[in-house]
Amino acid sequence: MSLHGSKKRKLDRKTEDHMYFDSYSDVTIHEEMISDTVRTNTYRMGIFKNSKSIEGKVVLDVGAGTGVLSLFCAQAGARKVYAVEASSIADQAVKIVKLNQMEDRIEVIKGTLETIELAERVDVIVSEWMGYALLHESMLNSVIFARDKWLKPGGLILPSRADLYIAPINDVVVEGRLNFWSTVKAQYGVDMSCMTDFARKCIMNKDITVNPVTVEDVLSHPCRFAELDLNTVALEQLRDVRGAFSCRCFGSSAVHAFCVWFTVTFPDEEKPLVLSTSPFKPETHWKQAVLYLDDAVDVVQDTKVDGEISLFPSDEHSRHISIRLDFVIGEHKKHSKIFSIPDQYVEVK
Amino acid sequence: MSLHGSKKRKLDRKTEDHMYFDSYSDVTIHEEMISDTVRTNTYRMGIFKNSKSIEGKVVLDVGAGTGVLSLFCAQAGARKVYAVEASSIADQAVKIVKLNQMEDRIEVIKGTLETIELAERVDVIVSEWMGYALLHESMLNSVIFARDKWLKPGGLILPSRADLYIAPINDVVVEGRLNFWSTVKAQYGVDMSCMTDFARKCIMNKDITVNPVTVEDVLSHPCRFAELDLNTVALEQLRDVRGAFSCRCFGSSAVHAFCVWFTVTFPDEEKPLVLSTSPFKPETHWKQAVLYLDDAVDVVQDTKVDGEISLFPSDEHSRHISIRLDFVIGEHKKHSKIFSIPDQYVEVK
Repeated sequence: MSLHGSKKRKLDRKTEDHMYFDSYSDVTIHEEMISDTVRTNTYRMGIFKNSKSIEGKVVLDVGAGTGVLSLFCAQAGARKVYAVEASSIADQAVKIVKLNQMEDRIEVIKGTLETIELAERVDVIVSEWMGYALLHESMLNSVIFARDKWLKPGGLILPSRADLYIAPINDVVVEGRLNFWSTVKAQYGVDMSCMTDFARKCIMNKDITVNPVTVEDVLSHPCRFAELDLNTVALEQLRDVRGAFSCRCFGSSAVHAFCVWFTVTFPDEEKPLVLSTSPFKPETHWKQAVLYLDDAVDVVQDTKVDGEISLFPSDEHSRHISIRLDFVIGEHKKHSKIFSIPDQYVEVK
Repeated sequence: MSLHGSKKRKLDRKTEDHMYFDSYSDVTIHEEMISDTVRTNTYRMGIFKNSKSIEGKVVLDVGAGTGVLSLFCAQAGARKVYAVEASSIADQAVKIVKLNQMEDRIEVIKGTLETIELAERVDVIVSEWMGYALLHESMLNSVIFARDKWLKPGGLILPSRADLYIAPINDVVVEGRLNFWSTVKAQYGVDMSCMTDFARKCIMNKDITVNPVTVEDVLSHPCRFAELDLNTVALEQLRDVRGAFSCRCFGSSAVHAFCVWFTVTFPDEEKPLVLSTSPFKPETHWKQAVLYLDDAVDVVQDTKVDGEISLFPSDEHSRHISIRLDFVIGEHKKHSKIFSIPDQYVEVK
């Protein structure tokens, strides 16, 4: 019985920032991130594998949170780490740095990357900036700003690359929820089967849903549709990250949705280290972004699923992501749909 | 990574109502309620057991939703059912009534109980008005309004009575979450144990948390602290529903919280029928309302836990419930804490 509203209006940037940073002032999100062992262990390994580039060097941690990545960098031999964090969790980072006796090497700076000043340029930037569907929260913008303003030429960015993937999926949970209304008569003696259409409109809507997708539900090989080289990508490019995809279905099923996920890669002399949020890999707190069609579409083996996808900041809230999907499944005609992250605020005037 | 704000302001009544009814326009909440078999089956049985009072009579269903209770009443022989529903789910109720060929006996009226007009007074009022901690959403106010305006003298209200209970509980999930920060060093080589205090402040906060409490976590017999007779309770009484409680603990444990739940009762000549949301009974979608202390308190067998509890509408949002708790555990001194349902909206100005 959760209260939520449906009206939206454009928020000003200051309100957006306040809401954004405020969301990191609670312990739950940090507990979720630290206890995501895929995330935290891959960053730890990615940092240690690059210790040659970190030893004796200056590091900038963009959006340091509790400071765990800054501590990994200090452990990897950094001479100095600037841990920049705008939310009040910075106060906890200060305590953690002290508890680990790293206060002579890690300086926690409470403020936004865009407004703070550093005493020097840096050799390395480390950041865990990825949001749902990679770009939700638009934190990559701050990393690029930091790169352009504070990174020495030829400096290192960890991770240094991101890739985006898409695949069609079946969704047995949604199938069960739609079927539920046809089971009510047997249970309570009241026929509610006419609710199915309404349920479909509500469930297969325009929200970007964040769900863990299971391997069995993925209906084709993943299709990579975009890559971002963090050494060179420009801010303007983030206003429209797009690509084409073409998949062939494994076998007979119904497509309920497309599923979008990402990987980021840490450079390494031997073998690059990949942090993957793929449904084919162990689950992370990012899960997958699920984009529902208006209705299920039946496919068979080798049915082609082609399309174009574009990620861009939403009109109402520039830190929120929107996704435009144009797709053709088999012989069906082309369909277009625009998705966005559901707002958790309402217009109160 | 959910965005949420912390600032609140008093909303006007119209905005509150809009947000409230809007929350019932999605399918999910209705699916949750209908698939709650304890809820729906007990209402069904409560209506059928009272069919002598319903046969050939006129019924008013307050907040009819999808109309399922109206259909039960028609099946129990009601001559006419007025199904009043303010949210857009009323449109689905119209379809369901038609599908079940009851349109000559059930009239769906889209509007708020306080503003609609009926052609006649009614013999029976049926309503599923209970929110979290019984009174969240303040829908009982509308039932009482309906009783005073539309129910014939001596008419029947289903259910006719509500009772509120409290008990101290242990919470192993919270214990684990607080302990988590002491496990980080072993896992990642960074000592984060100093986060425990911060985590406790965030988790054991002033929110009314809605959680399923397991039997093993309940530390004493339930203590009933309030009862409401729906035939006689007045609107003014709902502005402060309070009572005292006194429990004795079963054995050695730590009290993390108090747990509040309710029952409602359908009259019956033989044996009254009780819809229970107790942690000792099968789970319902209401789960239990959990009120965390600021810190865990150790108890042993027969430690006394005494106190007073008061439920009242919140200052910021009159449909939201607040709970004031004054309690003494064993030899500890008296402690007071005021809880409220966390807001899901923010001040955007």
